[in-house]
Order: sequence, then C-alpha cells, then structure tokens
Amino acid sequence: MKDVDPLFYDMRTLADIGEDALIARLVELIPTGEAGEGPGDDCAVVDGGGETLRLLKTDALVEGVHFLRDADPRAVGWKSVARVMSDFAAMGGTGDRFLVTLALPGTMEIAWIEDFYRGMGDCLTRYGALLAGGETSCVPEGSAAVISVAAMGSVGRGMAVMRTGGRPGDGIWVTGRLGGSLAGKHLTFSPRVEEGRWIAQNLRPTAMMDLSDGLAKDLPRLAKSSGCGFRLERAAVPCTEGCGVAQALGDGEDFELLFSAPPDMVTRGWGEMFPGLELTRIGELVAEGEGESLEGGWDHFG
Amino acid sequence: MKDVDPLFYDMRTLADIGEDALIARLVELIPTGEAGEGPGDDCAVVDGGGETLRLLKTDALVEGVHFLRDADPRAVGWKSVARVMSDFAAMGGTGDRFLVTLALPGTMEIAWIEDFYRGMGDCLTRYGALLAGGETSCVPEGSAAVISVAAMGSVGRGMAVMRTGGRPGDGIWVTGRLGGSLAGKHLTFSPRVEEGRWIAQNLRPTAMMDLSDGLAKDLPRLAKSSGCGFRLERAAVPCTEGCGVAQALGDGEDFELLFSAPPDMVTRGWGEMFPGLELTRIGELVAEGEGESLEGGWDHFG
Repeated sequence: MKDVDPLFYDMRTLADIGEDALIARLVELIPTGEAGEGPGDDCAVVDGGGETLRLLKTDALVEGVHFLRDADPRAVGWKSVARVMSDFAAMGGTGDRFLVTLALPGTMEIAWIEDFYRGMGDCLTRYGALLAGGETSCVPEGSAAVISVAAMGSVGRGMAVMRTGGRPGDGIWVTGRLGGSLAGKHLTFSPRVEEGRWIAQNLRPTAMMDLSDGLAKDLPRLAKSSGCGFRLERAAVPCTEGCGVAQALGDGEDFELLFSAPPDMVTRGWGEMFPGLELTRIGELVAEGEGESLEGGWDHFG
Repeated sequence: MKDVDPLFYDMRTLADIGEDALIARLVELIPTGEAGEGPGDDCAVVDGGGETLRLLKTDALVEGVHFLRDADPRAVGWKSVARVMSDFAAMGGTGDRFLVTLALPGTMEIAWIEDFYRGMGDCLTRYGALLAGGETSCVPEGSAAVISVAAMGSVGRGMAVMRTGGRPGDGIWVTGRLGGSLAGKHLTFSPRVEEGRWIAQNLRPTAMMDLSDGLAKDLPRLAKSSGCGFRLERAAVPCTEGCGVAQALGDGEDFELLFSAPPDMVTRGWGEMFPGLELTRIGELVAEGEGESLEGGWDHFG
C-alpha cells in the first residue's frame, strides 16, 4: 500500500481520468488479497478450499443514468438483479444470495418501491436466488436515486472462467446480438446464466466476461486482462435488427457473453441447447502490441 | 409472495410510513429464504452446514446525510467499512471480504477518492479484512454522492447472536457511552468486534444489535424482535461527557453494542479484557405489551 504524499494532491476529477485508470490506481491503496481473488474480473473469487468457489459482486443503478424515474419500476427491479446475475454468468457460475441498498428521496412513492421489489423477486425466482437482506437510506431532495445490489454466488472448482486466460490465436466469440439496448432490452434482458455454465463445461473457454459497456470498451478489456491484443472482424459482429455495427460496438448494456476459446473449438450442441440464440465468432486474440484498437463504448465518467 | 392489486396504488411516500413499516411490507413481496436467514437482523445468516455460518451485510453512506463533502475523506472511508464491521460485531462475528460501490459526481477529485480508499484500507487492515471488489458509477451533477458497502463475514456455529432470543426478565446492557456522535465520534468510532465476540463467548447474551439509530429507536426494535416489551432505567444510561440522556437516546450513530442477557449474568473478566470501556445494565426486558415506549431516534425517512 502506498502512503499519502502531502506534496501531491491530485486535483483531476473522475471525468478527467476515466473509470479503468481510476480503478488501477485505487487497488494500489488497499489490501485486496491474493492475485485472482480481488478486483479486476466480473466477480471476486474467494477460495475457501472446498469444491465450490465463492463469488462476490456489487453493482449500482443510478437514476438518470441507468434508468429514468418514469421507467416501469418492476423492470428496473428486474434489471438491478439481472445485471449482477450476468456477472456471475460471465464466470460460469450463478448467484445465490442478494442484498439490496436503496438510497431514495423521501418523496418516492411506496407503490414504486413495492413494484421495484416485485421486479427483483421476478428475477431472483427465475434464477433460483434469494434476497438475504436490504437497507434503505434517504438522499436529499433533488438527488438521483441510487440502487446498489450486492450478491454472493458460486462456481464449481475448475469451472470458473476468468478474464485472464486468453492466448494469441484463440477465437473470440459472442452470444446473441449486439446494439440497440436503449430501445428496451436494457430493462428486460435475460442474463446468460445457463449459457455461461454450458460454455464453461463444453467449450473450454480461456477467458470470459459479460458485455455491459459495449464491445468497443469490453473487448479491449478482455484482451488486456489476458495480456493479448485482438483483431475484430467487423462484418461478423451480429447486430440487433435495425442496428448497425457502430451501435453494436458502442451502445453498451447488451449483457451478452464475450469469450475466447482455442482455435479448434466446435460449437456442437449449442443450437440444441439454446435454440434461436446465436453464437458467433467475431475475431481472434493476437500477441500483445499487435492487432487493433477500438474507440467508443460507455465510460461511467466520460 | 403477494400479487399486484391493480386497484390499489399506494401514493404514500417513504417519508409518510417510515423505514420499519416499509421493510415489513417489502419482505412480503420477495423470496427471502428460511426464517432466521433473511432480512430483519443486523446481518443475514447463511447456513451452509459447516462449522462456520456465513454473514452478509450491506450499508450505505449518503453525502449530506451521513457525511458532508468537506469531511476528511479518509475518515469517511473508515466509517464506511466500520459501520458494516459493527453489524458483524453485533452478531458475535467478524467481517472478511468487502465490496464497495461508489456513485459519485464526475467532478469528484481523484485525491478525495484516493484518501477515501486509504481510510477504507485503515479499517480493513485494523480488523484483518480485505477489499474483494469495487464498482464506480456516475451520478448526475448536483446529486448527492452515495457510497454503498457490502461484505461477507462469519461467525462460529452456536456463537451467532440474533435479535430474537431475548426473554422477559433478561437484563438489558450496553457497551461504552451514548450520545454526542455528531461531535466527531460518528466518523472515528471503533466497531466493537472483539467485544462482541467476547460477549457472545462469555456472557450468554440472548439478543444483540449495534446502536446505529439511537437507543430510542433501537431498543424497541430489539425488544420487538424478541417478542418482549422493555423497561429502561433512564438514570442508568451511560452518557458521553457533555451529553444528557435525551442525546444518549436520540442522537444515533453510537455504534455501541446493545444486548440482553439472563438476570444472573455477571460481567467478571470484562474490565480486564476491555479496560476503560463501560459495560452498563440499563433496564430489563418484560412481557410483550408491558413496559414502556420510547419516542425519537433516527428515522431515515423522518
């Protein structure tokens, strides 16, 4: 851990340096445990020595950023749980016990909050999880509502897929179609829990993550975590009907799975297991420093 | 789980009905697991069948409510972890892996965030815990910053102290002195982790919680959870120097431990273990419907 240097007070703001650079600085300041256990992947992994690894994840929805006050509260509730469930899916695991923190203005109507809870319940029930606890706090009038969800999940030892195992030559794959989330999908998507587990068990993925900030942001993250570069075949990117490649790369909130797998990977069985859901090869990992770069995607402080 | 009644849309607000009534309604709407596992205590308890029970907790700090923008960020970071650690202490347990979600305006200075992380690190290190992950999100300009901390902890089987086991005739006890938290203690307090464990192992407590919303709010909660009433000996309440009983009851954020124990409990050993820290009997539990009621304390939506 680094000490405070009283001569150096960084006046730059979040908007100046962006989320990834911020996180890289912050993890230097604090005890985070063994490599592979701490921040940097879709979930934190806690290895208690048993046959099952514990997964931990936290995520927030901000009014005006991730949802609008006039959005269907039941859909917002679904989304709040589904986003976290998607992170467990991206490890090949699933979520188990959820905690919710609501920081709301005192003027929020009870009916809104109850429908929000019903939406959380819809998603918890769909994926066999439980709400273990909650907390409510008041924000000052005029402040945005903030909904924070934290959860504990699990994945079988040997089945956990990190972001770090990709190798040059691996194919890059994506589930479903990308782009156009704001047309509604961002509130109603289905986290790819069964798909993530099946991929982990059948396709020997070397690295995996879920697409939350857009392919243009997330593919470079996956490659960097694996110490690789990448080449994207833009013409191969599966786009949502009515969307072009720019939207598929930049819109964000697709919540599809992005993974790398050895070049000889075959997708036999996928179509029978998940009829109607595409599984598409969109490029390959290459050696670090080679390949291309991508601009765009969603930065939380951009 | 209840279904939505389309004829009944509750226009009342959070401020109208208050936190306890809200939570009682919400837990009806959602799958929460077995009794004793879900919401309603200081932490959620997950019994995986082993010698150790898992504890889960989430908690939020809101700018303008729990801290001011010009407060020392390192102290705010300490407080954000210490509040959650105090909840683990209230179960006789301790915290292990922490997650933090920061929902901040884009204008927040990097130096503020780094000092906040250093403060979290101070408290994690003090109590032997780790940061397992974090998330940053942007709130719209003019919105309050919201800091949400979630954590996983543990307590030995048979050592977990819930709020529910108090019986009429039990003495009511409190650690330390109460009141005056806003003079500074609310940012610098030490969660009573060692004290909570010692109490659980040595004093046969029947119910325990930490004092976050003030004795006037929290003592009735403890009694109600145990299906009891209570009698408070106001003259016995240990007040912080410069504070009266009204402040000791109403200020909140004491983060001392409140517990009940059989009438023949003796505190032998306490003074040697925790020199300088009072342990005071302030009343007793009585049968439900008897005893007194208390007004005041902190309601998050009052």
